[in-house]
Amino acid sequence: MDIIRSIPEMAEISRSLRHNGNVIALVPTMGYFHKGHLCLMDKARKISDKVIVSLFVNPTQFGPKEDLDKYPRDEKRDCALAEKHGVDYIFIPSAEEMYPNGFQTFIEVKNVSLGLCGASRPGHFRGVATVVAKLLNITMPHKAIFGQKDYQQLLVIRRMVNDLNMNVEVVAHPIVREPDGLAMSSRNTYLSPEERDSAISLYSALKLAEHVIKSGENSTDVVADEIRKHIETFPYTKIDYVFIGDPEDLQPIGKTIKGPVLIALAVYVGTTRLIDNAVVTP
Amino acid sequence: MDIIRSIPEMAEISRSLRHNGNVIALVPTMGYFHKGHLCLMDKARKISDKVIVSLFVNPTQFGPKEDLDKYPRDEKRDCALAEKHGVDYIFIPSAEEMYPNGFQTFIEVKNVSLGLCGASRPGHFRGVATVVAKLLNITMPHKAIFGQKDYQQLLVIRRMVNDLNMNVEVVAHPIVREPDGLAMSSRNTYLSPEERDSAISLYSALKLAEHVIKSGENSTDVVADEIRKHIETFPYTKIDYVFIGDPEDLQPIGKTIKGPVLIALAVYVGTTRLIDNAVVTP
Repeated sequence: MDIIRSIPEMAEISRSLRHNGNVIALVPTMGYFHKGHLCLMDKARKISDKVIVSLFVNPTQFGPKEDLDKYPRDEKRDCALAEKHGVDYIFIPSAEEMYPNGFQTFIEVKNVSLGLCGASRPGHFRGVATVVAKLLNITMPHKAIFGQKDYQQLLVIRRMVNDLNMNVEVVAHPIVREPDGLAMSSRNTYLSPEERDSAISLYSALKLAEHVIKSGENSTDVVADEIRKHIETFPYTKIDYVFIGDPEDLQPIGKTIKGPVLIALAVYVGTTRLIDNAVVTP
Repeated sequence: MDIIRSIPEMAEISRSLRHNGNVIALVPTMGYFHKGHLCLMDKARKISDKVIVSLFVNPTQFGPKEDLDKYPRDEKRDCALAEKHGVDYIFIPSAEEMYPNGFQTFIEVKNVSLGLCGASRPGHFRGVATVVAKLLNITMPHKAIFGQKDYQQLLVIRRMVNDLNMNVEVVAHPIVREPDGLAMSSRNTYLSPEERDSAISLYSALKLAEHVIKSGENSTDVVADEIRKHIETFPYTKIDYVFIGDPEDLQPIGKTIKGPVLIALAVYVGTTRLIDNAVVTP
């Protein structure tokens, strides 16, 4: 596995790989790999000839009061794990390499960025869309793989790729979970043991909601209330949002659940903000 | 010459051209070709194996009170001219093809879009950057050719291509002028014979400014005043802006001209807004 830090070098490698007929898959990450990331790499390995993983903690998607500085990093361990999972190139640019002096271009995906995490984290998806466009242009992959845990991010990227006619297939990978159901996240390392116990509330709330909907409940308000009440029974939790809406465009669906719905949650457990989601069909 | 109207078809042609080792040049246009466009096509012919011209009157770069509806169009004549100038493919998508229902992604180039035409035409460069990114992603050219008449547009596109790491070389072509010096523009057709006489004031003001600067005048205010006074002697003229500033980043340069400066003008002649510019070295 080669470690690449320069944009021109990475672009040249990708150009040459493409020229020689290789199918390239990109797994964009912010590093500090957990099993979720490794599953994306395994998936990439299966559907391509050459796997590129990017590791970049992207400053433009963090708000001024967010956890950019304390975001967990372990490049050495990440490189070892990536190599073990058959990655061919790991692309680790510096912030200066990605955002040189005078940088001033941003991509905004409007509607689908507005609610949910976009409402709680203004500018977040602008940063995500911009950095993903850059990474796609640099690594020129045929396929790019994203986890469904960041469901809204996935929709933002799909929309951007479609709207801007970018030449890449966006591949979604199901959420990878701990044995007890907690969605894998680098931010889970922030949790104290007591908070870790409460972190399960997101997953158990989703399972509860699924059960309630499958049992015939079709009121969005009732289902949302059940979710809220459930989460609030866990200590250290503070709900950011409970969203029940259209899985395609993230618009609210009104009072009645008629078809498949996205249930998306953001919950502070202590000071750590966790997200999780599920698409439920009545 | 082939006329292509569908995005997937155009993308497939470009993929295949690239695959077979052709160097592709794109000339993005809004049609109603004049000698300026034809010079860009001739240039493209010289520096590539395959020339694609796009013809799309892009609605997102027109303001609500601008001339989208009356913008001159003559597709048949344009196709004949393009063919005569050795163009291989002319790409003429519909607005629905480019902006289907649900379209919501926009590219903003910040600083360099703010002044000059960006100040007079809010949202204009957002529309330009977005459509050019789409056209570049669809046609996948190695080189894209833009006229220097739209100087700010050229900088916006260079900045976008750089900032987003897009794989294309932006080629600038000098302003093409009528025998009396008027910069070629599709909007010149809006001018009445009397207005056409006054339209020369932009070019003659630029020549005057060049003369004044080369003669040793180094005050931006004095040069700008000379330009204004000159233009105001012509009937039907109303100055939108006179800009003297940095040719690289379009920032103001303060009171004193020390090195090369961009002089950029926007002037209404009757109801027609014309632009012109020159880079002058003292």
